[in-house]
Amino acid sequence: MRVLSGMRPTGKLHVGHLVGALDNWVRIQNEGNECYYFIADWHALTTNYDDISGIYEYTMDIIRTFIACGLDPDKSVIFVQSAIKEHAELQLLFSMITPIGWLERVPTYKELKQQLVNKDLSNLGFLGYPVLQAADILMYKPDGVPVGEDQVYHVELTREIARRFNYLYGEVFPEPKELLSHLPKLPGTDGRKMSKSYGNVIQIDITEKELQEKVLRMMTDPARKRRSDPGDPAKCPVWDYHKAFGTTSSEKEYIINGCKTASIGCVDCKKILLNHMIERLRPIWQRLNELKKDKDYVQQVIKDGNEKARTFAVETMKEVRKVMNLRF
Amino acid sequence: MRVLSGMRPTGKLHVGHLVGALDNWVRIQNEGNECYYFIADWHALTTNYDDISGIYEYTMDIIRTFIACGLDPDKSVIFVQSAIKEHAELQLLFSMITPIGWLERVPTYKELKQQLVNKDLSNLGFLGYPVLQAADILMYKPDGVPVGEDQVYHVELTREIARRFNYLYGEVFPEPKELLSHLPKLPGTDGRKMSKSYGNVIQIDITEKELQEKVLRMMTDPARKRRSDPGDPAKCPVWDYHKAFGTTSSEKEYIINGCKTASIGCVDCKKILLNHMIERLRPIWQRLNELKKDKDYVQQVIKDGNEKARTFAVETMKEVRKVMNLRF
Repeated sequence: MRVLSGMRPTGKLHVGHLVGALDNWVRIQNEGNECYYFIADWHALTTNYDDISGIYEYTMDIIRTFIACGLDPDKSVIFVQSAIKEHAELQLLFSMITPIGWLERVPTYKELKQQLVNKDLSNLGFLGYPVLQAADILMYKPDGVPVGEDQVYHVELTREIARRFNYLYGEVFPEPKELLSHLPKLPGTDGRKMSKSYGNVIQIDITEKELQEKVLRMMTDPARKRRSDPGDPAKCPVWDYHKAFGTTSSEKEYIINGCKTASIGCVDCKKILLNHMIERLRPIWQRLNELKKDKDYVQQVIKDGNEKARTFAVETMKEVRKVMNLRF
Repeated sequence: MRVLSGMRPTGKLHVGHLVGALDNWVRIQNEGNECYYFIADWHALTTNYDDISGIYEYTMDIIRTFIACGLDPDKSVIFVQSAIKEHAELQLLFSMITPIGWLERVPTYKELKQQLVNKDLSNLGFLGYPVLQAADILMYKPDGVPVGEDQVYHVELTREIARRFNYLYGEVFPEPKELLSHLPKLPGTDGRKMSKSYGNVIQIDITEKELQEKVLRMMTDPARKRRSDPGDPAKCPVWDYHKAFGTTSSEKEYIINGCKTASIGCVDCKKILLNHMIERLRPIWQRLNELKKDKDYVQQVIKDGNEKARTFAVETMKEVRKVMNLRF
């Protein structure tokens, strides 16, 4: 199975990306699939066009994080969108056959516009980003696209565009399926959606000391106002983290019973989480440190990945131009 | 002065293109300016996405017509848009900073939507075509853009996009001026706007016999119902053609007096026009015939032109990526 997915370089990756996406990408890779994973730096411009200062550094940071978290450049093609100019050409051609109505119906379009109230998002690029996404995806003719629930409509739209293109010009594109990970979404440290703008994020490259502070300050079940008040793990964000980072079965029993009977305090529970998070993150931190020093290696990974992606993209565009009779 | 203009390959060129645009382009070329003239085949897709059958042949036809009408490949760069993929990349980047409101205000947007009622023009590509046009233009950093009155808003929008880009990222683009030709617009043979859909067009590659028929059947001043009714050249489409194709001063007097006093018939007047049109078109027909046979030469012109355009475009995109910190 061929698979493609990407991330926008609008910030550093956090533990939500790790357990909600990267773990899944690594699993798919290690099951022997043909994987294309990319940094969507052009997409970052759709919302960050007026502040591009971080895009390059975030791109480099995400690539290091990809590798540190287990994406293997020998198994997966890791590349940067803006290096493959063919994406822009295919986006332009798709724009000719994509009704604006399809784009205005994209759920994330209105959502993001409402969320980012201090940004002017009335630009053509922001309206058109699902078309660019369709080009990103269809370029590599994948069978599946690992996405979260919020991206399902985008993959549906991608299939619609593929279908319309094939109907008008000739069979070139497959209709890729969304691969829903069904992984739990990690909440932020305050229990709300994890989001940089809420300041409730735990970055993957956090230091051990900062991690300790953040975890110990995490919001818990509001019912446990005092140490002696019993709580309910089902209402506690810390429990979501336990589910993501794992517990032994005895720890699990200790936490659930202790919380419900108030025989343990939240700090006792959080210390167990902290151990598991450190255990999980420490090898990633080590690898990240090595990669930060080994700039040449990372540059080579990008160069090789871009080259492989480009080779595929060039072939796809040959087919596209052929069926559209664009012979120049 | 550097100058750029283009035409969409949605049909064969007619005499309105000759006297309204090409003559002006040739004059600008022969005044020693650096000229880029191109076929906007991607633009043809904005309206003809559902019928691409003619685009390639029209492109070839227009290039032959360019040369036959006096554009000299040794003096002007003649190229095809879709061969220069950088236009798509720049269009994508410009789309990030172009408010949709600017595009909805484009006068030709609503006009064309109303004109082409039997087409679904609600696609993203149709909304975005002025952004593609801005990319086409700014890529070559021209000082001036020879356009008709209906395209002035597009050049204004191009300047707005240049200004916004320069403000956000750094000074890369000049603000090109529109070069209005102030040439009279030729009406169709029925006096309405010349348009393929009205069937009132005189194509440049018309045969002499067809030209004779079309001219002799042209609509004249409606006041001259009978041969003995006097007319007014100012109300007669044939007179617009006389102004475009020239008369001797004695012919001019003969026509004006003859029409106003009914001492000549419309056929007498049209025969004079016919002579001047044939005189003007015959060398173009000859050259077109030669070019149709000499396919290799035309292919070489396109290849050379594309190469020169690409060299310029690659340099512009290097600057663009540098100021936008797109380093891949």
